[in-house]
Amino acid sequence: MRITRLVSQDVRFPTSKTLAGSDALHPSPDYSAAYVTLETDDPQGLKGNALSFTAGRGTEVVIAGIHAFAPFVVGRTLEDIVHDFRGFWRSLVGDGQLRWIGPEKGVIHLAASAVINAVWDLYAKSEGKPLWKLLVDMSPEQLVSSIEFRYLSDALTPDEALEMLKTNYSTRRLRETEMKAIGYPAYTTSVGWLGYADSKLEQLCQEAIAQGWNYAKIKVGGNLDDDIRRSRLVRKQLGPDRKLMMDANQAWDVGTAISWMKKLAQFDPWWIEEPTSPDDVWGHGVIARALDPIGVATGEQCQNRVIFKQLFQLNAIRFCQIDACRLASVNEVIPVMLMAAKFGVPVCPHAGGVGLCEYVQHYSLFDYIAVSASLENRVVEYIDHLHEHFVHPVKIRDGHYMPPTAPGFSITMRPESVAEFEFPNGPAWKR
Amino acid sequence: MRITRLVSQDVRFPTSKTLAGSDALHPSPDYSAAYVTLETDDPQGLKGNALSFTAGRGTEVVIAGIHAFAPFVVGRTLEDIVHDFRGFWRSLVGDGQLRWIGPEKGVIHLAASAVINAVWDLYAKSEGKPLWKLLVDMSPEQLVSSIEFRYLSDALTPDEALEMLKTNYSTRRLRETEMKAIGYPAYTTSVGWLGYADSKLEQLCQEAIAQGWNYAKIKVGGNLDDDIRRSRLVRKQLGPDRKLMMDANQAWDVGTAISWMKKLAQFDPWWIEEPTSPDDVWGHGVIARALDPIGVATGEQCQNRVIFKQLFQLNAIRFCQIDACRLASVNEVIPVMLMAAKFGVPVCPHAGGVGLCEYVQHYSLFDYIAVSASLENRVVEYIDHLHEHFVHPVKIRDGHYMPPTAPGFSITMRPESVAEFEFPNGPAWKR
Repeated sequence: MRITRLVSQDVRFPTSKTLAGSDALHPSPDYSAAYVTLETDDPQGLKGNALSFTAGRGTEVVIAGIHAFAPFVVGRTLEDIVHDFRGFWRSLVGDGQLRWIGPEKGVIHLAASAVINAVWDLYAKSEGKPLWKLLVDMSPEQLVSSIEFRYLSDALTPDEALEMLKTNYSTRRLRETEMKAIGYPAYTTSVGWLGYADSKLEQLCQEAIAQGWNYAKIKVGGNLDDDIRRSRLVRKQLGPDRKLMMDANQAWDVGTAISWMKKLAQFDPWWIEEPTSPDDVWGHGVIARALDPIGVATGEQCQNRVIFKQLFQLNAIRFCQIDACRLASVNEVIPVMLMAAKFGVPVCPHAGGVGLCEYVQHYSLFDYIAVSASLENRVVEYIDHLHEHFVHPVKIRDGHYMPPTAPGFSITMRPESVAEFEFPNGPAWKR
Repeated sequence: MRITRLVSQDVRFPTSKTLAGSDALHPSPDYSAAYVTLETDDPQGLKGNALSFTAGRGTEVVIAGIHAFAPFVVGRTLEDIVHDFRGFWRSLVGDGQLRWIGPEKGVIHLAASAVINAVWDLYAKSEGKPLWKLLVDMSPEQLVSSIEFRYLSDALTPDEALEMLKTNYSTRRLRETEMKAIGYPAYTTSVGWLGYADSKLEQLCQEAIAQGWNYAKIKVGGNLDDDIRRSRLVRKQLGPDRKLMMDANQAWDVGTAISWMKKLAQFDPWWIEEPTSPDDVWGHGVIARALDPIGVATGEQCQNRVIFKQLFQLNAIRFCQIDACRLASVNEVIPVMLMAAKFGVPVCPHAGGVGLCEYVQHYSLFDYIAVSASLENRVVEYIDHLHEHFVHPVKIRDGHYMPPTAPGFSITMRPESVAEFEFPNGPAWKR
């Protein structure tokens, strides 16, 4: 099967109208996607899809990055790519001219992620399996040969990775069966956007509890008095046993993160997410030591595996929040999950946005079945919007993600949605 | 004076034909520029210029990023911007939608850099001063109010910065006079591109010594035997007293960097530049401790001030190689120079590329006159190509950069050059 064409589309949802998604540094995002379709010469018309989640303005820049990678995939056969997936990955991420505008970060890495994820979607569809199942069924040797170890060998070698994957290989069917029966635990962020009024916060909390959620996350970092009032309100609704997470979205300097969170410690937060710049590995470590036993979490804007490697080496996070678009696809997410397991850090993926829930469910299923073999302190983020735009949206039951069954990466969008919300010419934007 | 229009141009030089610029990870770059012109309503037709240096493919992606920032400058007056330069900087770099595709790194930061540098160029031209002189003449209070301290307060506070600038303020005229007389020391990288044959390397070394250069840098990291042979050849030409620098351009993992450089230590390198991923702050520290007394240098691909902050905090580099395009303009370079001075690390800017020499001479002059007040272990990179495309190219005398005298940032390109090399429609690319 040969890839014949790469099509990219700029799809934006006007979420800023409702303040869903509002936080300390992103007051009014329009949740958006740089959406990729790889067309093929397959007689059944099989196509690979993927997207990079964005926040409105700038989606067109990611689209430009995606176009720069088109010559790296168009004309290639799926078989060739899959035969040397690591080599394929490096041909994009390590291109001697394009890497200058990264390297391995920001726009060009988001673009590489979308293009490579579209190949993984095509691969899974061609095998007739959901992506998590494709990965679970790959041998440890196949997996290790696909993933990227460059710059990681002081934390994880290919031999160690192989050993870890082999350890869990014989028992994987047990965990697969368990997942199909009860699903992977989730938590909800839908209650606590920064732009929501107290009454709305209270009502959403009550609804979430009624729906069976045992975790809730609120946004903090705008104003300390507001944060104290909102935290008190949410903790009262949750009771003492349900877990409350807080998310500052990079609002603070290191010292402020520590002093601010000491004021919120009385509400027993399970974690503080993104207390400062995602680039500040050392700062996260300082904050983690000062705020213990509150855990530090980050990852949604951590640019690549090298940042995660250091967060693990410096014991700077207690929760690893991989992002399905920020890291450049399966080939880079798996080594991060392997490092997390080696260093004993649970992976709790970042989700929400557009399509992130659809993506990360596959990663957490694979993580549990093949890598960590543990559910301890592990939950996947869930946000209850924009799922209606996907052909195979996530299924949540009793606060758990139920394993997807359709072939692929669950990221194919409904054509009507793409047409309606394409920017700037879709009807939703013309109105 | 009001900014009326932003024009951007994709200008590429076919340097890959000669292998000038070739290194371990960038085997055949086409040195390029995303070039910005800010047009104004000034009766004399004053324009601001800037560029972000790129390596060929991908320049069009940076151009897309620059366009995303056009609405942030077009329609603004220079007076308004300069009155609150930090606020202006944050309006671009911290935009609640655009920051998602960075934040503060890669394409979007390169784009912000070009747009903001064009404003600084306009500002300096409007004051009739070269940029370094504009900065030297600003009061410590003005400077501190212009620069960005977010995420830095655990390493440098505004009060400390003010104190440092005040300390050198009264003696600055002495150093200004000295610079005008003898210039700022430089070193040359032109001798040792990885793609050059031994005979060419030898000949270029002899020419460089004849021209008065006391430093030379060669590329390493491709093949160890080649590196040993080339290092021996260059050291023989340089003699024992001239300084030899080595540059691996991120070729190695941490362990490889250490073992490889132990084999090259016999040639007495002054520094090893970019031994590994520019994102690996901790790894640079491990390498630095293992290779002492060889110094570790990095910076040309360090994405922002937060990475530099950690490199200083962890004592991970002995030479700080700021890049004029990678960091988002004067407002972010100055805090890095202040941190370097506080932590006792000399700033030896990265240059070469297209226009980088033109840019960084201003920074090193300001660094010496207003910040560090020292020339110890400080040299600015110099590469002898592509200067002919600038209206006011750098002037080198006896291995020193002579202070520019023309108003602005020295980065305005000759219109004939832009027309000739514009990609893909300029005559140079049509042929």
